[in-house]
Amino acid sequence: MAKQLSDDTEAPAASTRPRRRAGLSQARSRDTRRRLVQTAMRLWTERGFETGIEETTIDEIVEKAGVTKGTFYFHFAHKEEILLELGYQTATVLYEEATRCVNAQRTLEESLRRLVGSLVASVQAAPPAAVGRAMSEFLRPRKPGDEPPASFPSFGQALEILFARAVEVGEVTDAVEPGEMAQIIEALYVDSIMEWSKGRLKHLKPSLQRRTAVVLAGLRPGAAF
Amino acid sequence: MAKQLSDDTEAPAASTRPRRRAGLSQARSRDTRRRLVQTAMRLWTERGFETGIEETTIDEIVEKAGVTKGTFYFHFAHKEEILLELGYQTATVLYEEATRCVNAQRTLEESLRRLVGSLVASVQAAPPAAVGRAMSEFLRPRKPGDEPPASFPSFGQALEILFARAVEVGEVTDAVEPGEMAQIIEALYVDSIMEWSKGRLKHLKPSLQRRTAVVLAGLRPGAAF
Repeated sequence: MAKQLSDDTEAPAASTRPRRRAGLSQARSRDTRRRLVQTAMRLWTERGFETGIEETTIDEIVEKAGVTKGTFYFHFAHKEEILLELGYQTATVLYEEATRCVNAQRTLEESLRRLVGSLVASVQAAPPAAVGRAMSEFLRPRKPGDEPPASFPSFGQALEILFARAVEVGEVTDAVEPGEMAQIIEALYVDSIMEWSKGRLKHLKPSLQRRTAVVLAGLRPGAAF
Repeated sequence: MAKQLSDDTEAPAASTRPRRRAGLSQARSRDTRRRLVQTAMRLWTERGFETGIEETTIDEIVEKAGVTKGTFYFHFAHKEEILLELGYQTATVLYEEATRCVNAQRTLEESLRRLVGSLVASVQAAPPAAVGRAMSEFLRPRKPGDEPPASFPSFGQALEILFARAVEVGEVTDAVEPGEMAQIIEALYVDSIMEWSKGRLKHLKPSLQRRTAVVLAGLRPGAAF
């Protein structure tokens, strides 16, 4: 027991250096990853997303990014995974926004208004064709073992923490699970973004706002299904 | 003028035979198409949809169906187009159901109840993995010229005729376009069917019913967005 206690007290000092080293290499790794994403996005945008992804080789991406091919494959299994990165970045931004809203005890309506604002800004920062390809990559059927990493928060999780709180404080009915509410909103937003990316929807924001309003009206407190 | 009138009166007699022949050959063509779909579905089901579609060659399908490869390509550009056929069949059934409901002046709620019943029956007639692959094929990004044929009614059209009538008779708000209402319901149903096909949703029908109820509550008459 004494031995174990001694091990415990030594542990923090012993682990500080490796942890700091891991932190530094993690930061370097993140930078490399970001550079690969930016380089690929730049090449694809120049060449157009219809055929640009197919036409651009991994050799070209790593050469322009100044990294080795091995480094590329350390980060991504294939080119298309870079497209998922766009989605992860957006999901992370939205998750942070949702967390801030819950902490600030904002109303559900105001929280979703802010989330829609962040979502539109993030989506419209990329060319519509890139967004369309990224969405398709997310929706692509996957074989076991080919799933995207679970370490990123999902858009659905961001919505779920908002709805969970809204049920708790009685802003919406408790007859529907918060997870299901989140999935309803997510499915409707994904559909609007898809339509926008295909040029079939001119204005993304009003579409998201209208769909939010319909669902919130349908989930008003006291509603039973 | 007399000459033209004479041409007109002769026309029906002259065109009867070719038209009947066209009718016969259309029926044969439909039978062949159906046989190709059934043969492919049987082979894929036997082999499992995860890898069965890739493993099954067009040569095998045409041999088992007893047609030539040329006949296959007359009907389908590639194997995956057979999957779309499942969707077309469902959309056609739903469109007919929606038309009957409008003609019988059924309420929107009752019409959607019937549509959900037909949809669930049609979807659950195929293995979940087949449904998942068919949905992915529908959602797959397409290059110009690679679009599915427009001659089939879409699921969205079936919903739109229901909502258009419901707005007319004041069953729902007129603050949202019937086309947008249809797209909201379609996006939510598609999402539920996708989840079901992936095994993440156990019971499809209650999910569709709950989502219908939420949207109808949100679209109640007088609601403004």
